[in-house]
Amino acid sequence: MFAPTYLDHNATTPLDPRVRDAMLPYLDARFGNPSSRHEYGRQARAAVDRAREQLAVAVGAHPTEVVFTSGGSEANNLFIKGAAALMKPGLVVVGASEHPCVREPARQLERSDWRRELVPLDSQGRIRRDAFDALMEQSPRLVSVMAANNETGVLQDIESLAAQARASGAYFHTDAVQVFGKQPISFRGLGVNAMTVSSHKIHGPLGAGALVLDKRVDLAPLVAGGGQERGLRSGTENVAAIVGFGVAAEIAVAELNGWTARAGRQRDMLESALARLGARIFGAGAERLPNTVFFAFEHIDGETLVAKLDRAGFAVASGSACSSVDPRPSATLLAMGVEDEVARGAIRVSLGRDTQDEALVRFVKTLDETLQGLRTLSAVAV
Amino acid sequence: MFAPTYLDHNATTPLDPRVRDAMLPYLDARFGNPSSRHEYGRQARAAVDRAREQLAVAVGAHPTEVVFTSGGSEANNLFIKGAAALMKPGLVVVGASEHPCVREPARQLERSDWRRELVPLDSQGRIRRDAFDALMEQSPRLVSVMAANNETGVLQDIESLAAQARASGAYFHTDAVQVFGKQPISFRGLGVNAMTVSSHKIHGPLGAGALVLDKRVDLAPLVAGGGQERGLRSGTENVAAIVGFGVAAEIAVAELNGWTARAGRQRDMLESALARLGARIFGAGAERLPNTVFFAFEHIDGETLVAKLDRAGFAVASGSACSSVDPRPSATLLAMGVEDEVARGAIRVSLGRDTQDEALVRFVKTLDETLQGLRTLSAVAV
Repeated sequence: MFAPTYLDHNATTPLDPRVRDAMLPYLDARFGNPSSRHEYGRQARAAVDRAREQLAVAVGAHPTEVVFTSGGSEANNLFIKGAAALMKPGLVVVGASEHPCVREPARQLERSDWRRELVPLDSQGRIRRDAFDALMEQSPRLVSVMAANNETGVLQDIESLAAQARASGAYFHTDAVQVFGKQPISFRGLGVNAMTVSSHKIHGPLGAGALVLDKRVDLAPLVAGGGQERGLRSGTENVAAIVGFGVAAEIAVAELNGWTARAGRQRDMLESALARLGARIFGAGAERLPNTVFFAFEHIDGETLVAKLDRAGFAVASGSACSSVDPRPSATLLAMGVEDEVARGAIRVSLGRDTQDEALVRFVKTLDETLQGLRTLSAVAV
Repeated sequence: MFAPTYLDHNATTPLDPRVRDAMLPYLDARFGNPSSRHEYGRQARAAVDRAREQLAVAVGAHPTEVVFTSGGSEANNLFIKGAAALMKPGLVVVGASEHPCVREPARQLERSDWRRELVPLDSQGRIRRDAFDALMEQSPRLVSVMAANNETGVLQDIESLAAQARASGAYFHTDAVQVFGKQPISFRGLGVNAMTVSSHKIHGPLGAGALVLDKRVDLAPLVAGGGQERGLRSGTENVAAIVGFGVAAEIAVAELNGWTARAGRQRDMLESALARLGARIFGAGAERLPNTVFFAFEHIDGETLVAKLDRAGFAVASGSACSSVDPRPSATLLAMGVEDEVARGAIRVSLGRDTQDEALVRFVKTLDETLQGLRTLSAVAV
């Protein structure tokens, strides 16, 4: 089978074989519904409980603070809409570069008389602290800022932002989907009221995510019914996916230091090569995830470059995969003040635990050749 | 490994090995995010598209009418809350024996100034048509009645109820989770505006369900964000689960006639034996699913009987698994006018494609012995 080199780990990651092996019994003999009061049900319930403990340890929370969902998008929606449903309408503040699954639910609140404000970014993709401080003076009820951006990898100072939001009386949520497994993270240490994590970004399966939630925050469930997950998320638990998520979380934390050191070294190598080829690297002046490089070349269209690299056997992203149905340039780059035309050139390389040095050497060589081809074509066209 | 005889298929079903085999490549090399614009993404997108076609054929709908969700509970919530969010508050009507994942979202609407009415049942568990007709005269906006009850297996005349609800100006939804794969079903044929189906009840994996939706009905998404599923359900698609759901749906329809004939014969055999043991069978006077028997013995507690059968190697349910966290007797039985004490005795046997005649013979024998033991104990206690 044709297997292109995968350099798009911020979109999704291959399943770790150890995770798959842990899941398989739950696709076979251990197929029970955790709510059933018989042997099959008890096996399934025990598996979900074990995964909840594994995840809690991995994110620095208590097992009772973990609410399993079908993924990160659902967890983000659950916090924003679920908290808002039990409050009087007020101000919701979200970062300008939040993932659509935070921006959109915040926008939906406007239908219920909420006011939504976006926190602007500086040119490096960091939350503009002056603007954030000014918004906090307006007594928001809900604030959500992502820990690391999916496109640029830029990190925010969540601990400090959360402290200020809480001081102004708001509940603070962070979408930690991209940071989990790439940086040490602690729910308790960050001092947030809620935090979203996802399985398929950490070499776990699709179909599982979690909202880690301070129990003082009341939420109305998005999915109401049988009362699973302390009544916050009804529906039969996706046992195999949850089991996989627990094991993936455990592995991600155990192998974090080794991998991130390697990823950082690989990224530095890649960025040096990109600089030689004339790339502009977005957010280069900010603290970033060790695995993410978001860049563009002058007068080169990102979509075209990604398509050519795809044919040459390299899987990279132009803008975030989750919004690839949307042809507009990256909202993150526009919020950073990047010109529309430059933003349209953006492509993202995101490394994973399985990325080999040798693959990056091949990637740089292919990128160089592809750029030469496109530039010759463009010179001929002029 | 100890493998009790599984007779709880209305709670969940073992994964068909053919379904598992279809899923495995998507837990291995085909791990892409369907929104990614490279080879991995295209493979995943093609797989989701294929599953959408398989499901559409299986339920008598067009592929563009299929909205994949994480399961049946989410699909039911999506319809009720999603439709209500775009309407002026009004009347929502649901059956008295609906699954909690229909009753609870309808109840949540009361917070937004909706009025909720339950349609009462007759003693056999059928919708009381006089009461339904009277409610339709009150011009409801939303009506939801399940096609088959998860506990009793009693079938409703959805085609007729839907026609009347639509004539009175309402959108009509049916929770078809329990009927799909056990009776022929057609979205178009029923004339409903929306219909919920679930994968794990038809020997498919957990983590996939669908809302089949008339495109004239506007819904606000529960999970908003990246815009997947025509903007009605954002979040990276659970590719392996969706692939499994498609194959499971195809198999369920292909093998429907053979299985339901066998299940009907097995159920008749079981019910004759239960009658000899003195059981009262709920809904016996109504048309029911061929695989479901809900029954009780006088002065025998259901929980106790289920626990004893569990230890003897038989997995059956006391009330619906999805509400087993709730110790109250079955809402369905109470709505049928069954006395509280009798309702507490209820246990459910639900057959599956893998159920063998020989297992039922052993079950009846064990049940007989268990009842004798409990009755002796009870006689001694008196």
